[in-house]
Amino acid sequence: MPQTVGAQSIQFAEAPYLLSSASIVGTKEGEGPLGKLFDVVGADDKFGEDTWEEAESTLQKEAASLALGKADLKKEDVRYIFGGDLLGQNIATTFGLMELNIPLFGLYGACSTAGESLSLAAMAVAAGYGENVLAVTSSHFASAEKQFRFPLEYANQRPLSATWTVTGSGAFVLGTRRGSVRVTGITTGKVVDYGIKDSMNMGAAMAPAACDTIYQNLQDFGRRPQDYDKIITGDLGKVGQGILIDLLKQKGYDISAVHMDCGIEIYDSETQNTNAGGSGCGCSAVTLSAYILPKLRQGTYKRVLFVPTGALLSTVSFNEGQSVPGIAHGVVIEHAG
Amino acid sequence: MPQTVGAQSIQFAEAPYLLSSASIVGTKEGEGPLGKLFDVVGADDKFGEDTWEEAESTLQKEAASLALGKADLKKEDVRYIFGGDLLGQNIATTFGLMELNIPLFGLYGACSTAGESLSLAAMAVAAGYGENVLAVTSSHFASAEKQFRFPLEYANQRPLSATWTVTGSGAFVLGTRRGSVRVTGITTGKVVDYGIKDSMNMGAAMAPAACDTIYQNLQDFGRRPQDYDKIITGDLGKVGQGILIDLLKQKGYDISAVHMDCGIEIYDSETQNTNAGGSGCGCSAVTLSAYILPKLRQGTYKRVLFVPTGALLSTVSFNEGQSVPGIAHGVVIEHAG
Repeated sequence: MPQTVGAQSIQFAEAPYLLSSASIVGTKEGEGPLGKLFDVVGADDKFGEDTWEEAESTLQKEAASLALGKADLKKEDVRYIFGGDLLGQNIATTFGLMELNIPLFGLYGACSTAGESLSLAAMAVAAGYGENVLAVTSSHFASAEKQFRFPLEYANQRPLSATWTVTGSGAFVLGTRRGSVRVTGITTGKVVDYGIKDSMNMGAAMAPAACDTIYQNLQDFGRRPQDYDKIITGDLGKVGQGILIDLLKQKGYDISAVHMDCGIEIYDSETQNTNAGGSGCGCSAVTLSAYILPKLRQGTYKRVLFVPTGALLSTVSFNEGQSVPGIAHGVVIEHAG
Repeated sequence: MPQTVGAQSIQFAEAPYLLSSASIVGTKEGEGPLGKLFDVVGADDKFGEDTWEEAESTLQKEAASLALGKADLKKEDVRYIFGGDLLGQNIATTFGLMELNIPLFGLYGACSTAGESLSLAAMAVAAGYGENVLAVTSSHFASAEKQFRFPLEYANQRPLSATWTVTGSGAFVLGTRRGSVRVTGITTGKVVDYGIKDSMNMGAAMAPAACDTIYQNLQDFGRRPQDYDKIITGDLGKVGQGILIDLLKQKGYDISAVHMDCGIEIYDSETQNTNAGGSGCGCSAVTLSAYILPKLRQGTYKRVLFVPTGALLSTVSFNEGQSVPGIAHGVVIEHAG
């Protein structure tokens, strides 16, 4: 088993290339600090559809098509899609990716799904199971609020620890063809439960899982935090970021100098009323595509650890008094020189 | 790419072994034709828990532990779990498998998830990503009715085309250690939509997807139906079975002599009031574990094509007038001599 390293990681013998990516977002994301970097900013968050769920499906379809076009590939060139979203029974993915007519592995890892899909796509390409594979994830503010919280019309107040679900989809083409960025390794997360029961404080619920995966990655690869230009979590937000840094300090690692959180980067919380930050499968995916990958392509970053974080709950589990466990999947992405 | 065959399949160069499996079911499944074959039949469908969802989680936890025990493995020996269920945000899986403390890839493929989890587990082992990997899926009649249909107390009438969700979980250990059964190939399904809108006729919704995957499997591997001792769909039931056989005849293949459907096998619909048959992620998983694998171990079956079938809908997609597309994932399982 030459490729497995340590307890939970893989270092790919033949690291797959991240050939292209695309990001499509809603109006609020377009008005945020990264607004000019996204490939497409929708003129209205329904994206020409009748329902929020169809709008989210359209995001996935368009992001996937755009990523394929950038890699100069047709859909027939893609062997598998690894895709997922936050909605019950993954309906945004089903209806979004159906027309592509590509074999589909449906995934659910809450907001960690961007990491899960990149991990499995990299595993598939590195094993020779396909020359080109797509990883696609999405979230939509309005479909997620309807799924997890309250009808928008109810105008429920949101605590300061709450995050704002990103409207967006990120799609990534991984393949064997030479490019300037590679996925060199992964660290797959376990479900970690600290007993948090507040679904409006998902940063606190997910920080222990992020800590667990980052700690394990550093151990498995024998690296220090400064061996990464950035250690990038998905959507811990400001509350979760503080907890993560503290938890890792207790385990002997100080990541404060290299930590970045996509949920903090994507909005200006002072002016955009997004409280602790952004969240959702789309948050880390579009930030990776629009903001982080260009720096890896140019070599500004040589190596990053990308760690999307997920809060594992449903309205049923929440209403039945269950805790909100977390999960985080780590993906090592490097400039390929 | 020596392992990929045809348009959608993999033939494993080093086929992983299916080392052990376990099946745990509810009382109704225990009273059915396969009742004596299951490892555990619960005395009551709450399995000692307070809620149906916790009961389903317990099914997964116990099935996974039992499968590990049969393979003489500890949880520390398992590199990954590929797991999923039917509930929104996969909560049965999250809370069921959390205590195992094993890196988790959460999956959603509706009732096809047993095929999806076996496919990805086999891909991981064959690629050298882990010596032992678990594939676990479940469904529970009461948690599924609550999720997709009506409260049980409402005692809604069910049309003859409806299926009965199986209460059960099947767990499978795949690994590199020599055993008597191997997963030799897979054919991964696409989302197939014939525009069926009746969620009480899921057999009709899933049959085109089963047809697509079986046809592709026969094409990719250059096989005829009789090259399999059985071609086994997950939960088409009696309505879906007829449609599948007709659709494949139109494409030049007659599978009527070798077709089996887990949903038809698991209940006696005459006496058990289950209408078209059983369904759910658990249906194909427990039937594979209790009924099909023993025949493969003994060599009664030399080679089967196992094709769990999923209907991709949620209450939201249904209420918004969407169709019910299907997906089916094929797994080739062989006696290893």
